[in-house]
Amino acid sequence: MLVCVPNVLNAAQLVSLRERLERSNAWVDGRVTAGYQGAPVKFNQQIDERSDTAIACQRIVGAALEVHPVFISAVLPNEIYPPMFNRYGEGMRFGAHVDGSVRINPHTGRKLRTDVSATLFLSNPEDYDGGELQIEDTYGQHSVKLAAGDMVVYPATSLHSVSPITRGVRTACFFWAQSLIRDDMQRSVLHEMDNAIQRLNETNADEMARRTLIGCYHNLVRQWSET
Amino acid sequence: MLVCVPNVLNAAQLVSLRERLERSNAWVDGRVTAGYQGAPVKFNQQIDERSDTAIACQRIVGAALEVHPVFISAVLPNEIYPPMFNRYGEGMRFGAHVDGSVRINPHTGRKLRTDVSATLFLSNPEDYDGGELQIEDTYGQHSVKLAAGDMVVYPATSLHSVSPITRGVRTACFFWAQSLIRDDMQRSVLHEMDNAIQRLNETNADEMARRTLIGCYHNLVRQWSET
Amino acid sequence: MLVCVPNVLNAAQLVSLRERLERSNAWVDGRVTAGYQGAPVKFNQQIDERSDTAIACQRIVGAALEVHPVFISAVLPNEIYPPMFNRYGEGMRFGAHVDGSVRINPHTGRKLRTDVSATLFLSNPEDYDGGELQIEDTYGQHSVKLAAGDMVVYPATSLHSVSPITRGVRTACFFWAQSLIRDDMQRSVLHEMDNAIQRLNETNADEMARRTLIGCYHNLVRQWSET
Amino acid sequence: MLVCVPNVLNAAQLVSLRERLERSNAWVDGRVTAGYQGAPVKFNQQIDERSDTAIACQRIVGAALEVHPVFISAVLPNEIYPPMFNRYGEGMRFGAHVDGSVRINPHTGRKLRTDVSATLFLSNPEDYDGGELQIEDTYGQHSVKLAAGDMVVYPATSLHSVSPITRGVRTACFFWAQSLIRDDMQRSVLHEMDNAIQRLNETNADEMARRTLIGCYHNLVRQWSET
Amino acid sequence: MLVCVPNVLNAAQLVSLRERLERSNAWVDGRVTAGYQGAPVKFNQQIDERSDTAIACQRIVGAALEVHPVFISAVLPNEIYPPMFNRYGEGMRFGAHVDGSVRINPHTGRKLRTDVSATLFLSNPEDYDGGELQIEDTYGQHSVKLAAGDMVVYPATSLHSVSPITRGVRTACFFWAQSLIRDDMQRSVLHEMDNAIQRLNETNADEMARRTLIGCYHNLVRQWSET
Amino acid sequence: MLVCVPNVLNAAQLVSLRERLERSNAWVDGRVTAGYQGAPVKFNQQIDERSDTAIACQRIVGAALEVHPVFISAVLPNEIYPPMFNRYGEGMRFGAHVDGSVRINPHTGRKLRTDVSATLFLSNPEDYDGGELQIEDTYGQHSVKLAAGDMVVYPATSLHSVSPITRGVRTACFFWAQSLIRDDMQRSVLHEMDNAIQRLNETNADEMARRTLIGCYHNLVRQWSET
Ligand code: NI
Ligand code: NI
Ligand code: NI
Ligand code: NI
Ligand code: NI
Ligand code: NI
Repeated sequence: MLVCVPNVLNAAQLVSLRERLERSNAWVDGRVTAGYQGAPVKFNQQIDERSDTAIACQRIVGAALEVHPVFISAVLPNEIYPPMFNRYGEGMRFGAHVDGSVRINPHTGRKLRTDVSATLFLSNPEDYDGGELQIEDTYGQHSVKLAAGDMVVYPATSLHSVSPITRGVRTACFFWAQSLIRDDMQRSVLHEMDNAIQRLNETNADEMARRTLIGCYHNLVRQWSET
Repeated sequence: MLVCVPNVLNAAQLVSLRERLERSNAWVDGRVTAGYQGAPVKFNQQIDERSDTAIACQRIVGAALEVHPVFISAVLPNEIYPPMFNRYGEGMRFGAHVDGSVRINPHTGRKLRTDVSATLFLSNPEDYDGGELQIEDTYGQHSVKLAAGDMVVYPATSLHSVSPITRGVRTACFFWAQSLIRDDMQRSVLHEMDNAIQRLNETNADEMARRTLIGCYHNLVRQWSET
Repeated sequence: MLVCVPNVLNAAQLVSLRERLERSNAWVDGRVTAGYQGAPVKFNQQIDERSDTAIACQRIVGAALEVHPVFISAVLPNEIYPPMFNRYGEGMRFGAHVDGSVRINPHTGRKLRTDVSATLFLSNPEDYDGGELQIEDTYGQHSVKLAAGDMVVYPATSLHSVSPITRGVRTACFFWAQSLIRDDMQRSVLHEMDNAIQRLNETNADEMARRTLIGCYHNLVRQWSET
Repeated sequence: MLVCVPNVLNAAQLVSLRERLERSNAWVDGRVTAGYQGAPVKFNQQIDERSDTAIACQRIVGAALEVHPVFISAVLPNEIYPPMFNRYGEGMRFGAHVDGSVRINPHTGRKLRTDVSATLFLSNPEDYDGGELQIEDTYGQHSVKLAAGDMVVYPATSLHSVSPITRGVRTACFFWAQSLIRDDMQRSVLHEMDNAIQRLNETNADEMARRTLIGCYHNLVRQWSET
Repeated sequence: MLVCVPNVLNAAQLVSLRERLERSNAWVDGRVTAGYQGAPVKFNQQIDERSDTAIACQRIVGAALEVHPVFISAVLPNEIYPPMFNRYGEGMRFGAHVDGSVRINPHTGRKLRTDVSATLFLSNPEDYDGGELQIEDTYGQHSVKLAAGDMVVYPATSLHSVSPITRGVRTACFFWAQSLIRDDMQRSVLHEMDNAIQRLNETNADEMARRTLIGCYHNLVRQWSET
Repeated sequence: MLVCVPNVLNAAQLVSLRERLERSNAWVDGRVTAGYQGAPVKFNQQIDERSDTAIACQRIVGAALEVHPVFISAVLPNEIYPPMFNRYGEGMRFGAHVDGSVRINPHTGRKLRTDVSATLFLSNPEDYDGGELQIEDTYGQHSVKLAAGDMVVYPATSLHSVSPITRGVRTACFFWAQSLIRDDMQRSVLHEMDNAIQRLNETNADEMARRTLIGCYHNLVRQWSET
């Protein structure tokens, strides 16, 4: 399930983030965190994830995620990997790869299973050409390029790539979440049920039906969730 | 989940069944089908399950079950063991036991997992004393004694018993079903969702919400069912 | 599986707890911790769960639970939500609801899946009328009202309510546990096996059989437990 | 996982199928087989699935599927629902729906879980406008319109539709398969491993590695398959 | 779990089987049933599995298996692949391989998942040298060579081989079973529990404990079995 | 799956460990940590696991494990129980037992599920007779006695024992790991896939096949791992 999460950051937060990133001297070659499969196809830059810049920016994004209802409903996050920040200049790209399955949180040392991948766009799409996030399946591709401040979340099992930049610079934030619900199909059912219940609430549907569905939702979470 | 399924048989079907059973000479000691655990505590009579009486009565009950919406929604039957028929005279009883987990269909030779147990009451409750179906858990008991033609279905994992008859005769039909959905908790969620969707249909709730919930229902069945 | 856990608190502990609770000024409206489904039907009072009273009382109950063999065998707790304390005066009640599936520990910030619900009775049953804990299933209800110091644990998937108080005050402690064993059916099998092994030990049954069964018990825990 | 299965039928088979379908008098309103959710949005025609035309055409398609290596590797079919045949004239369409989860084989009476949906295109794409099979997810759509004789298979959990026909007639064959492997993610892993092993065979890669991977493939099938 | 099943065939049955096999003209090259992985390493002969000899011998072995308590307890067979018969003359052998995961029953056309592999020895071990069945794991090997009439069953996931024959002829019967219980670990727990319960019965252990354990056994089968 | 992990400790580390253990006064009776099943059959000595000696030695072993590629690939450790140290003098032994399923880390208080058991040999095998680690299954035994510095890891579900010492002293380190992958069969598939991919890398096999297999490996870890 691909979900677009709109307005994760507002204009002020975007300005604050971009300024910190632009003036930072913590940019390093993106290959420092690439695994065996990713390294040969990764051409970009990242902020050192233990730098002061990273930590300050992680706080801003983390606080925004914590209260975003679409993000919470679609991802049901158990733990979030500290957000990372990258940029692609002209000619840079990231070839097709599947993200590594288990990562170690650099601040806590705890292992995190990457169930969901997220890309939060920080550059305005009119400021660069290329740089589409392309999420592939056997038959075709979804090509994603969102407004600054918007985010896409998608199953971390996906084969995906970032197409070459042909003009400008593409800055983005990316991270993974270990969801309470490991399985994408189950997470989708819960997200759809939650949406349907919201609609029923807004339209004052039969109360007993709504109460039953809320109970079903919680008991499905009980059956599936891993905390 | 215990569910009472009302009006499985109508008055005419009840008369027809009772007559066939009463005049039958296929009654045998109930211990012929009891396993290691049940035999020492089982004191009743059964119709030989390969007799003509059994086959005729199985057809009547089977046809009634096939079209009963509460039975179908609550049990989601994959296959039904050919219904059996027993009677308890004064002093007879069936001590606490758990039903065997796998039975062989006497007509087809196929194995059937007993997910759900069912008792369909054939005697009027005023015609006998005692003979409650008692379904136990650690803290207490549910005691079930229904009108003739009504049925109770309950998880075959339950410890249960039939209390001694102190007056009259208690005739009943009993059988097991292998459900499409093995797990009782999952079957309960589906039954509750189905009930809620019916209520939303009857009250003309938001159409998109209803369509989403029907899709969720089917995808949960897909994820859980074994055919 | 409903299990009654007797004598969780002794007389001295009860006195100590009741005194702390009675003289506390941390009582708040129960709705502060109710979710979307519970809020409209919840009418009671709770001790603020971060207050000094709460923390002191949590320690007393926590220490008692840690060494109670029935509690441990029936619940196989992985983590316990800090016990909470509520009271119902005349006319108060809590309508039918299913408890929320994931809660955040107010002291550690960690998420906890609510597998098992527990109510520890602090008031003597003769000191109030009404206030039964009613745990419902589709067919009927279990109504629970225990001596002060006794506790009931039941699957958190259950629909349950507290009936209106018609005389006196009902004070209780309640909490949830994330079990090592998420599934109620699996937890029941382990509790029953543990009970059977205890009986075999006490009656000096065949040693090789007992050793085999202990090995089976541990390998079932290995297959099912989530730490 | 969407997979395109090319050349399921050759030119001669296509001609034979089309002729039988065109001259058949077994065309009926498509709503006869639509469930509660599909009926209000389904506007097309179908061949009566018990008609002689249906049975003859089912044999042709069934025989072609049985030996098609891409179909077998991608679907790992346990049982195939007898292929059905539909046509959309101008203005006809099938609105968004999720296919029903369990269907009864009209010839054998056996239940079949619909894990995979398949559409085999029988009309040349230049002979009609519109009529795209649109497989939706939350973020976007895959739009599929293939050459006559080609087939698309996709998870039956998907929300999908057929867009309105604006010119000509679109004739197609469609069916479901219960796979040996219920879960789409698991089926994808096996299909990818099979493809990788084929490539390693063709390039004479290290023999011991290939043998190990074949053993892994079979042991994954053992762990996941339901026959 | 490797289990030795003693005395599957008695002396008379062995004589009857050997005579039929020796005078048969249905012996073919063993590679006819070998898959991609097995063919290059398989050097032996087999009885054509649709021949009259095969069918007659399958009946003898099938009838013996059906009533063998150790076989039933250890394998919990759902369906048995029609037993096959092979022989290794001097110099013949079968290199290391993992058996295919799904086979089609040549008589019924039904698919069967190979959970358990079985070898029933028909030759006296003193009549040939070599020909050990070697079941490997990463660290070492189990080498199995049993008396005529004895059988070994082992997980079909195992890498195994038959070492070269250096003298005489080794004739054996082999087959697979789809168990009610797919997972080897779960099957082992049930076999051990069954053995422990038998011992407790023989030694008249506490009756309530035994009844509880039988209930647990059946409820574990319910939770795990696929019919 | 039994795996031998060679050269966990080098000669210098062995000397350092042995010296610390020999001069320690923290040796206690091994029964202090034995459960109900183990206590009656356990005759050996252990270093008190909270002593300074234990903590110093745990650091040496822990650091060696953290970077050992065979250990990581075969065990996929999530968390390691602080290594323990025992010794068997003449006549000492540890009878057949299954290790307890859940242990509490003495330093952190966290619960750990014992998926994998490990024995790291510290004594040279020529310095003692007896003392084989015997890992049993129904049919036979694996007997393990390795060079000092080598380690064996095996499923903690196994019944195992240490045979009596008849000469000298056997000192060893032992511990458990909670794996990211609970199930032994799944862990084996991943270890075999990893080995096959390494071989393909070393032999420069088809790159696209390798990339696909790495993606499959990560997606299997995602489907199975518990962090
Ligand atoms: Ni990526
Ligand atoms: Ni019964
Ligand atoms: Ni509640
Ligand atoms: Ni459809
Ligand atoms: Ni083989
Ligand atoms: Ni041990």
